[in-house]
Amino acid sequence: MQEYRREALRWLAEEYHDLNGTQYDVLEDFPTPLEFSRMVHISRPILMRGSAIPSLSDAAAWSKPWLADKMGDRDISVAVTPNGRADAVTRGPDNKLYFAEPLTQKMSVQALLRSLSSDGPPAADASQDARTSQAEVHYLQSQNGNLFSNRYYELRGDSEDPSEFEPLREYIPSEISWCSDALDRNPDAVNLWIGDEKSVTSIHSDPYENIYTVLRGSKQFTLLPPTEGWCLKERRYPHATYVRSPVTSQLELVPSPAETPLVRWSSVTDPTDPTALPAEAHPIHITVNAGETLYLPAGWWHYVCQRGFTVAVNYWYDMEGRGMSWVWLNFLRDTEEPPLGNGEDEPEGGEKE
Amino acid sequence: MQEYRREALRWLAEEYHDLNGTQYDVLEDFPTPLEFSRMVHISRPILMRGSAIPSLSDAAAWSKPWLADKMGDRDISVAVTPNGRADAVTRGPDNKLYFAEPLTQKMSVQALLRSLSSDGPPAADASQDARTSQAEVHYLQSQNGNLFSNRYYELRGDSEDPSEFEPLREYIPSEISWCSDALDRNPDAVNLWIGDEKSVTSIHSDPYENIYTVLRGSKQFTLLPPTEGWCLKERRYPHATYVRSPVTSQLELVPSPAETPLVRWSSVTDPTDPTALPAEAHPIHITVNAGETLYLPAGWWHYVCQRGFTVAVNYWYDMEGRGMSWVWLNFLRDTEEPPLGNGEDEPEGGEKE
Repeated sequence: MQEYRREALRWLAEEYHDLNGTQYDVLEDFPTPLEFSRMVHISRPILMRGSAIPSLSDAAAWSKPWLADKMGDRDISVAVTPNGRADAVTRGPDNKLYFAEPLTQKMSVQALLRSLSSDGPPAADASQDARTSQAEVHYLQSQNGNLFSNRYYELRGDSEDPSEFEPLREYIPSEISWCSDALDRNPDAVNLWIGDEKSVTSIHSDPYENIYTVLRGSKQFTLLPPTEGWCLKERRYPHATYVRSPVTSQLELVPSPAETPLVRWSSVTDPTDPTALPAEAHPIHITVNAGETLYLPAGWWHYVCQRGFTVAVNYWYDMEGRGMSWVWLNFLRDTEEPPLGNGEDEPEGGEKE
Repeated sequence: MQEYRREALRWLAEEYHDLNGTQYDVLEDFPTPLEFSRMVHISRPILMRGSAIPSLSDAAAWSKPWLADKMGDRDISVAVTPNGRADAVTRGPDNKLYFAEPLTQKMSVQALLRSLSSDGPPAADASQDARTSQAEVHYLQSQNGNLFSNRYYELRGDSEDPSEFEPLREYIPSEISWCSDALDRNPDAVNLWIGDEKSVTSIHSDPYENIYTVLRGSKQFTLLPPTEGWCLKERRYPHATYVRSPVTSQLELVPSPAETPLVRWSSVTDPTDPTALPAEAHPIHITVNAGETLYLPAGWWHYVCQRGFTVAVNYWYDMEGRGMSWVWLNFLRDTEEPPLGNGEDEPEGGEKE
């Protein structure tokens, strides 16, 4: 049974790849709602050469000084890790692998910006910033609708959906009209992301249609279609969270209580490494530069890096729940429990619970 | 392996049904192209209370006398069978099961109309017409784009795409604008269907988005989603065609040469019989009356009956080939050869080639 499942997943991945290849469309203009509705049905990534956020006459917009000026001395919630890998599989002090959540720390925008690489084109030696920075890595990646949450659309008001980034709301539309019209719904969450090359987002998939627009810097996406999820060798890991030691003030990875459910996550930590994936995987590499927008379809696996100081906004829309799409994504991913992530040198023959 | 496949198909059918049920939408107005694009993505049947063919001021339009008047003495190609089951699994004189194609016979529209039940509301005893009719059953079901084929759209002209029903073209649009706009393509074929309750269409699926509009009489559709195709127990049958014997003038079912490929077809001859399907099948029954239109999504299984004299037009549009849909339909249907249709009393343990 296990063997046929593997065979079925291989068959689906191969057929899908034979039909679709690794091609992706690049659009010079945003689609109409009807055009975008067709694109959602096809569910392939699309790079659009335009910003979903209206451009401002101020050339300094979205730069560090501009952000500092707009935000003043407000505190925001920032993910803090020792290695730039929040929400990722990480080896703990006991040498076991954990799914590690970051410390969420309140700090001023100024403090965040100071800790990030310099704004503007990356230096010839891009690693310089990283070398001179402190031992902790900061990334604004709160993903809870930090600009607009679904409460905003339901209650139609700023007051009912407070945002740490309230001063930036006037510059960021609460929805993307061609996307909302195509999908006939409001976004579920709109998030601001501020980080640099010291942070990466580990590979995962979301059940959301995702419109990702870059305002400063650039993002490098490594994408795999839902049919190639099995190539990412998901495992189940114990949960842990970074905590600041009251004694040393250093970050420590603290395992969660034993009753905390295991977290299912890809065991591939760097899918840009050509040796990390089986031959059946066909990653698509797309760089999204400032002023460009990516349509990242629901269920697609994505790993995200940044080059230098990078500001981005993404819009998550619930995927269509009716019909087949949801069932297929579950079939590709959830019909079987993956093995445990610890204590297996050879994943195929690893230990079972 | 066979067992896991069966288990996977069961899982998909159950999840799909749990999510979608047997519900279908009924629309009082035709959708906009954007609305229809969303419907195609969801891929569920929809009944629309309106005719895709503009209604004529002449109340007699599409009646027998009206059709006879418009068509004159032209010959048309009609499917002829002894039992009203063209393109269906039928027992031959040697007691073996065949996939039987009809005799295609040229006859005048008048001759066809005379052989069909009377126009108008069905008589209290609807089987009367059938009893008094001749031993052969006629059905206009040529399915080759008998009104407009893809040559019409490519060459943009009547002269390059001759139709046996040329006099009716002025009453029938060559495309449905909300559907062509939603799918961004022309129809692949537009077909006229003329028949009565003596003919049925055996259950099958097509890789086309199908817009089916009824002009006279009514059609009863029995529909199953693509995920329930395994409930229809496909088998492989030798091919045969009805031929008129030059000696007796009677129809005879003549097996095709042995090298003719076997035809894969459902072994369920009447899916409206509640005992014919396993409990996992959830047929949806939709009656489409004159003046109504059915959206029958690509890959959906359908069995079609008619009540009394029935005239209909359908528009086939190629389904979207990019993305996942095509791969999934193939996975549900084509990853394995079904058993042979003859010589098996117990399909599950039947003979193998």
